[in-house]
Amino acid sequence: VSGLLERLQAVLGPEHVLVDPDLRASYETDWTRRWTATASAVVRPADTSEVADVVRTCAAAGQPMVIRGGGTGLVNGSVPAAGEVVVSLERLRTLDAVDEVSAQITVGAGVTLAALQAQVRPLGLDFGVDFAARDSCTLGGMVATNAGGERVLRWGVTRTQVAGIEAVLADGTVISRLAGLPKDNTGYDLPGLLAGSEGTLAVITRLRLRLVPRLPARVVALLALESVAAAVDVVRRLRSLASLEAAELFLADGLTLVRRHTGSPAPFVATYPVFLLAECAARTDPSEELLELLEGAAEVADAVIASDAPGRSALWRYREAHTESINAEGVPVKLDVAVPLPRLAEAVDRLPGVVAAVAPGARTVLFGHVNEGNLHVNVLGAPDAAAEHAVEVAVLELVAGLDGSISAEHGVGRAKREFLRLSRGPAEIAAMQAIKSALDPNGMLNPGVLLP
Amino acid sequence: VSGLLERLQAVLGPEHVLVDPDLRASYETDWTRRWTATASAVVRPADTSEVADVVRTCAAAGQPMVIRGGGTGLVNGSVPAAGEVVVSLERLRTLDAVDEVSAQITVGAGVTLAALQAQVRPLGLDFGVDFAARDSCTLGGMVATNAGGERVLRWGVTRTQVAGIEAVLADGTVISRLAGLPKDNTGYDLPGLLAGSEGTLAVITRLRLRLVPRLPARVVALLALESVAAAVDVVRRLRSLASLEAAELFLADGLTLVRRHTGSPAPFVATYPVFLLAECAARTDPSEELLELLEGAAEVADAVIASDAPGRSALWRYREAHTESINAEGVPVKLDVAVPLPRLAEAVDRLPGVVAAVAPGARTVLFGHVNEGNLHVNVLGAPDAAAEHAVEVAVLELVAGLDGSISAEHGVGRAKREFLRLSRGPAEIAAMQAIKSALDPNGMLNPGVLLP
Repeated sequence: VSGLLERLQAVLGPEHVLVDPDLRASYETDWTRRWTATASAVVRPADTSEVADVVRTCAAAGQPMVIRGGGTGLVNGSVPAAGEVVVSLERLRTLDAVDEVSAQITVGAGVTLAALQAQVRPLGLDFGVDFAARDSCTLGGMVATNAGGERVLRWGVTRTQVAGIEAVLADGTVISRLAGLPKDNTGYDLPGLLAGSEGTLAVITRLRLRLVPRLPARVVALLALESVAAAVDVVRRLRSLASLEAAELFLADGLTLVRRHTGSPAPFVATYPVFLLAECAARTDPSEELLELLEGAAEVADAVIASDAPGRSALWRYREAHTESINAEGVPVKLDVAVPLPRLAEAVDRLPGVVAAVAPGARTVLFGHVNEGNLHVNVLGAPDAAAEHAVEVAVLELVAGLDGSISAEHGVGRAKREFLRLSRGPAEIAAMQAIKSALDPNGMLNPGVLLP
Repeated sequence: VSGLLERLQAVLGPEHVLVDPDLRASYETDWTRRWTATASAVVRPADTSEVADVVRTCAAAGQPMVIRGGGTGLVNGSVPAAGEVVVSLERLRTLDAVDEVSAQITVGAGVTLAALQAQVRPLGLDFGVDFAARDSCTLGGMVATNAGGERVLRWGVTRTQVAGIEAVLADGTVISRLAGLPKDNTGYDLPGLLAGSEGTLAVITRLRLRLVPRLPARVVALLALESVAAAVDVVRRLRSLASLEAAELFLADGLTLVRRHTGSPAPFVATYPVFLLAECAARTDPSEELLELLEGAAEVADAVIASDAPGRSALWRYREAHTESINAEGVPVKLDVAVPLPRLAEAVDRLPGVVAAVAPGARTVLFGHVNEGNLHVNVLGAPDAAAEHAVEVAVLELVAGLDGSISAEHGVGRAKREFLRLSRGPAEIAAMQAIKSALDPNGMLNPGVLLP
């Protein structure tokens, strides 16, 4: 390894090859802080060419690498496991001028979502994916993990926003497809394949991204409902509005936690079991079409509407404060699952029971994104690690039995690898392994991530 | 081969193994009628299981296969080249009930686009891709070739509509991902990889498809402009309308051909060089927001607007009659290219010149889809096959030099294989070949298609 470190220092300069444990530490865990291990070194290349040099140098030495963006992952996908070199892309921060004609932009993999937003929003454009980690998460990481969030209903997952990719393959060769052509049927969709591959097939270094119109007129409605089935039915009708941008679910127990933690007032005089938060956005005020549609929805027991920014934020706070309010009660087991929408009500109904069966006394708090059948499962009060694992198994087996996904947004990483077989058949896993072997035959990139 | 045919007959029944030349003939060419060759047999399996049996049987005999949908391709991608077995998916016509909750449907690969439309439209839903071959083209073929069309601006290419896939791999194993989860980050995006792979990686047998709202209120505007640059600029602003669904380009010479062929009246009193056809669609009449935006567009020299169905059809006819009007003048060289939108005006400006330089006296007629920089290049009057090839080379080299695509919508097939290197670098072609070898190591599926 010492010879390797010298070669990496020669390539990058000594200041970008971190070996001091104090300097390495922040690169050796992720946002969960559940996983940590020692890296041989942390390297910080400056551009695609330096990334290619690093990959070639490590590959020649048989030195595996872990690829790292903003470190906001939750599934042990960007953390070393056994002395890998961590390749941090934080210095790939080039942010080109917006191509307003195409509504696209080219960015380095290390650009944060917040920096991208700051670049494009003054021009009346926006990025189609947004979530709370925006100040830390990087576009390279978002694409590598195919990040989701609250706007997927309207604009699609991160993969949908990718108009092109530049990446370094495991042998150090560079592929570059940055022209941003929305129609380009010339061979396999490598950008789409790399999106969501969690750094196991290539190192994404630059991205050509689609931008969407920044819509100025917004309205948020918080709806009180008697059941999840009613929420699903209301969302089905809301989808006929082109302006619908988000449809979020939470439940009475989550609202109680949020109110205790934030001190927010009750949104309704009466109590209800289920809440649906819907946001519409358009060039001109979408309130009228939203209200017209809601008036015809018998399921809606009560509703609060806000068009002004403070009012909208106050309503969103009931939903967005769930994570911090749950964390204030203890360290939860967190799972991120999806089921087909016709089975969402059944999933919400059955999940607390399967959790209680393996971890008596534990509390299950659920919230999520209705249209994608995507539930964030938070379990508080599992007594020990064995019970926590039992909760994971019970939840994911239930979800798989409902034809669902064991990881809707967060990815597989090393944390969910043992559960991949629940969502994917043997032939499909074999096909994935064949692709992995074809593009990274020596297993140099993110070994142990994603595939069993 | 005779032993193979007997085994296939045993699997499918003799009536679904066609060996008579008259019965095979329609399966041995595509819509261009430019390519034809003899198949060993044409087989017509009924479902995924029979497709798997066919693939296993042929693979065991070392017998290559060509996969065929509706036969509407234009690039020699579904035609035998040298005694392959043609696997026609025309009998995979299962059309499930619409899942209205999810706005999705599961269909067999052999279902035509028109049959899908007939199934979903009465429920207020629609498929996001549409084009003129709808009565013949099949969903399997549309996904395998990632078909485009006129609505890509709003709903994206066919790959975007795919929520899941069932497919038979080259070894006869079946992968099935039909739950239709919009968020499902559990491994590589195999459905997205198969979309656009032109039958070279697997045989797609069933599809889970996203549906979009069928929007009842529509308005079409035909705009007269002084330049392509003006058309690009108007489209840039039209994109701020969420209702924008199509933005089509044609030119004065194309309009002249169309009027001669169809007898349609002149749309404007004066003559103009460039025309932009824009369509908006919404739940309620989008005319007002379209007119408001156009009033502020100084580039628009004149405009005709139609909201009623006959008026809209009459305006669309100027654009859609281009293909038949060109064909009435002779057999054109047809190319389907795309360039980055900021270079569209330059491409339109330079294309006739590079054609004339290699085929003096030939006429170049251009039309296309503005937002994707997608031009259909039709060259009439190239004197012979050598000149036709010279036209192809000249056009595609110009397009590649503008960072464009040698095949925007139609795919590569065997017809464009020699030009793939113009749009894709050696590292990218090597990565594609590695994926092909990983999933079809013996080259059983569509040999010679897509890859050099």
